[in-house]
Parts: sequence; C-alpha cells; structure tokens
Amino acid sequence: MKLDEKQINREVIFQGKIFNVYKDKIILPDETESFRELVEHKGGVCIAAKTENNNYLMVTQYRYPIKQIFFEFVAGKKEQNEDPLKTAQRELIEETGYQAKNFIYMGSFVPTCGYSSEIIDMYYADDLTFVGQDLDENEFLNVSSIKLDDLIEMIMNNEVTDAKTIILALKLKNLGK
Amino acid sequence: MKLDEKQINREVIFQGKIFNVYKDKIILPDETESFRELVEHKGGVCIAAKTENNNYLMVTQYRYPIKQIFFEFVAGKKEQNEDPLKTAQRELIEETGYQAKNFIYMGSFVPTCGYSSEIIDMYYADDLTFVGQDLDENEFLNVSSIKLDDLIEMIMNNEVTDAKTIILALKLKNLGK
Repeated sequence: MKLDEKQINREVIFQGKIFNVYKDKIILPDETESFRELVEHKGGVCIAAKTENNNYLMVTQYRYPIKQIFFEFVAGKKEQNEDPLKTAQRELIEETGYQAKNFIYMGSFVPTCGYSSEIIDMYYADDLTFVGQDLDENEFLNVSSIKLDDLIEMIMNNEVTDAKTIILALKLKNLGK
Repeated sequence: MKLDEKQINREVIFQGKIFNVYKDKIILPDETESFRELVEHKGGVCIAAKTENNNYLMVTQYRYPIKQIFFEFVAGKKEQNEDPLKTAQRELIEETGYQAKNFIYMGSFVPTCGYSSEIIDMYYADDLTFVGQDLDENEFLNVSSIKLDDLIEMIMNNEVTDAKTIILALKLKNLGK
C-alpha cells in the first residue's frame, strides 16, 4: 500500500515559546484531501549521567500537563539548530551541577509520532566533576541518584512513567551498563 | 525544594480534532507568576499482539509530523473517557483484523511530560483469531509481524524510533516474553 502524504497548505494556529501548532491540508495516499494537526518542536536531549558510585543522576520535578511530580533522567530542549551534544553538556551542568568528560550517543526516539515533530537524542555520560548548578529562571527541581537496577524495578512496577527515562534506562540495561 | 505549580488562568488557543492547546498562567513554587503552553490529548493505547508463531503484529505507516515511514506496534487514540482496554480491543481489530481473547496490561507512560497531557496505556495480547481489518477512513498502513528479538535488535540499532514501540518491546524483553 502507498503510504506517503503530501502537504498542500498550512494554517499557522500558534507560535509559542515551547512549540508551534499548524493545521496542514494534505493529499492522502488515495489522492483525497484531508487535514493534519501538528505540533512543531525543536527537539530535546536526555542524559543518563553515571557517578563514581555507579549511580545515575536523577531529577524530580513537577510536570504541569500531568499535574504530578516526575522522576526523570536529566533532559532539556535544544536551542534552534543546536548540536544535541552541546545541549546535553549544557543541560547536565545547569540541572545537576555536574560536568561530564565523556558522552556516548545512545540513539534517538520520537515521543509522539502522530502529532509532534519532536525528536529526543539520548546520551550516556560519565567521568563527572561538580562545577555548580545553574538552573534556568522558572526551573524548580531536586537532584538525586539511583542504581540502574533500582530504576529498572521502578519502571517495571509502573512507578516511573516518563518516556525518555524508561527508554534510556531499558537501553542501558539491555547493553549491560 | 517545593515543586508544585498552580493554574490561575487559561487561554484557549486551539480546539482541534486530535488535541487542544492552552496557554495557562500559573504560580511557580517561589510564588512568582509564569506561563505554561500545553497540549491536551485524550490519551492512547499500544498493543503488542503475539501470533501463533510467536511473532508480534506490526504496522508500517507514514507519520506526517516526521515525514517518515514508521514501524510500530498497533496503537490508537482513546475516545473521550473510553476504557483503554476497549480502545485496545477495537484498534487491534481495526488495524490488523485480529481479535485477541487475552489482554494483559503492561503499564502506562507519558510521552512528553513537558508539554502534553497524553498518557499511553500498553497491552500484551494473544490467542488471536482473524475477523477482518476495518481501517478508519484516512488511515493507510501495512501489517506485518516480527520476532521480538529481531525488533529489539532494530531498536538497539536505532532503526525503530517510535517511543511506544520501544518501551513496550523492551518491557516485554525484560519480562522474558
């Protein structure tokens, strides 16, 4: 079956700080017309930073859309066209105060392929030095650390529900990190 | 550190077919005011349906926001307040033509906790009978099947990048399914 869809028109619904929203008129594979609502997002990074004690750095923060406290790996949004490795280096220092000498790319994923263009690049980091936290204005979080096996147990028990944290932790586990 | 944020006002930006968009005025943990842009989504389900040959049913479809063909487990959006198990039963038949006697809940996850309220409930399904595919109008996809180990290999090689498919496959692998 032919699957491609082609854009023929775009209505700009919203241009925000975090994302833009469009309603596109498209041609479906059967040549009929339809619409797609979509969120445009610059993309982000997620970092699993391992300490000297073989723990992973975690952040605890309130996530407004879900109205719950989330337990997550360090993460952040890319600046426009920013190299994701640079975003990862910057966010790790800003959120936790730790600078890592070593970063290894762990793949990318698409959180919501149905309606958002966001892509998240993942990194493993180690060889950490504490240089001081530097939170953004409007950013409130607590830093802690956890053994990978304990994090995996929380994931399998449905206590950790953040997609990027689940994916990166299970990939690390699968690699025996 | 105190983490909660409280809504004090809401601007409705967009009310769509797939999602709504709001810009909320909020009180931050330090009692200052700020804004949160958010997408409201009804939530969805993802189903790993195992065939008699111990393969998992997969769908291949074009994902407009990323402009790429994606290889995914069966998935779909909930109707308003629909029991997610009912969504899973319905979507499996609609997309693949297979009815499953047995469904096991595999946990939930939040794809993009920073800006969307979407929650995805995951299911393992087996004991399948073919009753006939019934695609939605405007839905174009190809159905195939794959061994879990081959899917895991594609995930680890970054050839499968859809969040729900990665999470459910790695959870199944971790459980020895």
